[in-house]
Amino acid sequence: MNSLDSILKRTEAELSSISFTDEPVSLYDPITYILSLGGKRIRPALTLIGCNIYSENIDAAVKPALGIEVFHNFTLLHDDLMDGADRRRNRKTVHKVWSPNVAILSGDAMLIASYRLIGKTPAPYLSVVLDLFTKTALDICGGQQYDMEFEQRMDVTEQEYIRMIEMKTAVLLACALKIGALIGGASLHDADLLYNYGIDLGLAFQLQDDLLDVYGDPESFGKNIGGDIISNKKTFLLLNALRMVEGEERDRVLGWLCRIDCDPERKIAYFTELYSKLGIKELTEQRIAYFYTEAKHNLSALQIADERLCVLKEISEKLMYRQV
Amino acid sequence: MNSLDSILKRTEAELSSISFTDEPVSLYDPITYILSLGGKRIRPALTLIGCNIYSENIDAAVKPALGIEVFHNFTLLHDDLMDGADRRRNRKTVHKVWSPNVAILSGDAMLIASYRLIGKTPAPYLSVVLDLFTKTALDICGGQQYDMEFEQRMDVTEQEYIRMIEMKTAVLLACALKIGALIGGASLHDADLLYNYGIDLGLAFQLQDDLLDVYGDPESFGKNIGGDIISNKKTFLLLNALRMVEGEERDRVLGWLCRIDCDPERKIAYFTELYSKLGIKELTEQRIAYFYTEAKHNLSALQIADERLCVLKEISEKLMYRQV
Repeated sequence: MNSLDSILKRTEAELSSISFTDEPVSLYDPITYILSLGGKRIRPALTLIGCNIYSENIDAAVKPALGIEVFHNFTLLHDDLMDGADRRRNRKTVHKVWSPNVAILSGDAMLIASYRLIGKTPAPYLSVVLDLFTKTALDICGGQQYDMEFEQRMDVTEQEYIRMIEMKTAVLLACALKIGALIGGASLHDADLLYNYGIDLGLAFQLQDDLLDVYGDPESFGKNIGGDIISNKKTFLLLNALRMVEGEERDRVLGWLCRIDCDPERKIAYFTELYSKLGIKELTEQRIAYFYTEAKHNLSALQIADERLCVLKEISEKLMYRQV
Repeated sequence: MNSLDSILKRTEAELSSISFTDEPVSLYDPITYILSLGGKRIRPALTLIGCNIYSENIDAAVKPALGIEVFHNFTLLHDDLMDGADRRRNRKTVHKVWSPNVAILSGDAMLIASYRLIGKTPAPYLSVVLDLFTKTALDICGGQQYDMEFEQRMDVTEQEYIRMIEMKTAVLLACALKIGALIGGASLHDADLLYNYGIDLGLAFQLQDDLLDVYGDPESFGKNIGGDIISNKKTFLLLNALRMVEGEERDRVLGWLCRIDCDPERKIAYFTELYSKLGIKELTEQRIAYFYTEAKHNLSALQIADERLCVLKEISEKLMYRQV
């Protein structure tokens, strides 16, 4: 079995070796650019790890793993354009370096290129992998649609929010893991359990992202603290605050959300204090622990020796404690 | 064998029966909208015709045929956004009815939905069909990229232009026909000949589109005459005019191309007269005839009884004389 370290190194090496020789180069430069910006490469790693649970040889999972990472970066490219985001990973976004039209068209080419890689799945698994990938990709578009619609709403329920992050974030982690397992030779029973593991892990992961935006260490989180607060993002924390506050406090919250020019530090300080006062940090931590526990229940039902799961458990722990 | 009429009717019926039951509906409404705007449905018809050349039963080609039409409409949706086009087939474009973000995201979902339909190709053909579809889709993005780049250039050669329309238009006709033939059971030899037929037919078709923009009958052409002239589109006609004119005449042409507010009727009249004076109508007709003849050479090399080609020949004739 491969160590987590060797899986991550292989993922990065395979990603850097992708080159687009198609014409015109101007269509592919933005794709090379966004793929070079880095990232944790969790999704392709999960595909290789899923495969390695069932097979010593993970070569057959490499191209589909890359397809999932290319797809993920395609969603970032188009989401940044739709969100009007100027920067990603401390670099300019594609539509800022080039133009909105380039971002649209190179994004389209990137989505197609991700299918080209998924299409390299070995023939016996191609149909089922393709179906799963396509279903996942549509879910992710649906999740982004909900996310944009939620911006205009003040009455988003926790249930709606969980469904949105399931579609936008969790399904791709689940899909990545399941595709790897299938290519490794897992039974459909095991592959489905790993899918469910990925869903719950993804939900825990996204809620932790929401939490770290407020309470994280800027050094290790890799993003500026309070970014979600500044942009009025309807996170798990804000939705719960909106649900709890009444009267004058509610008016103050809505006031901060409506104001366009305000001191960012004061706004961050206000919401951080509000969340602490309402016990929202603890509430979020409880939900994270709940989903992470739910995730792990799936693993105990797998028909596989426990020691084959150590790398999956290792990357999950690192993800939950953000050391990867 | 099915008649052309029954193929076209089946195509239209199958297209109207596509319904998107995925959530959220707001993501799928624009897809249903653009698919309802009509069109000649040449591409899915070519897939069914290609299949019918080799097989009496064309059912297996229906879903891939729809995938090609959904993909084609996806390109229209994103191209309209990139071109800032307000109207398509006498109705508002998606980004005008909804918003640019909706056009981006629903377009993405539409591209994925086209893969969902292509993924329904019978297992023995899935891998080869998928590869061809993906290669074609990337070519089309490349063609659109060239088309946008040509807007900024005055020195586009005929060779570059032919390559652009091959990528943007011809490859999808060729791909549609080849996919159908493969699913019908054609040999790779025959499928490739039909692909080449589609390429040359597509080139002839696009050059005729360029010609009809100037010399067509508005009634039967279905678009306003002179649209390409008004928008300074680098058509086969304009490129040849730019190549031929010198001195003061060249300055006049460039003057018309630079002017932002000008009388559209005078501009159309100027270019129509210029093209006639330079013999560009005849030149274009010669090139159309050349590509159509080249196309037909491929058919004579097919290893199939001639009578099985009658529907393909019929739709080609109708296309070349725009009666479909």
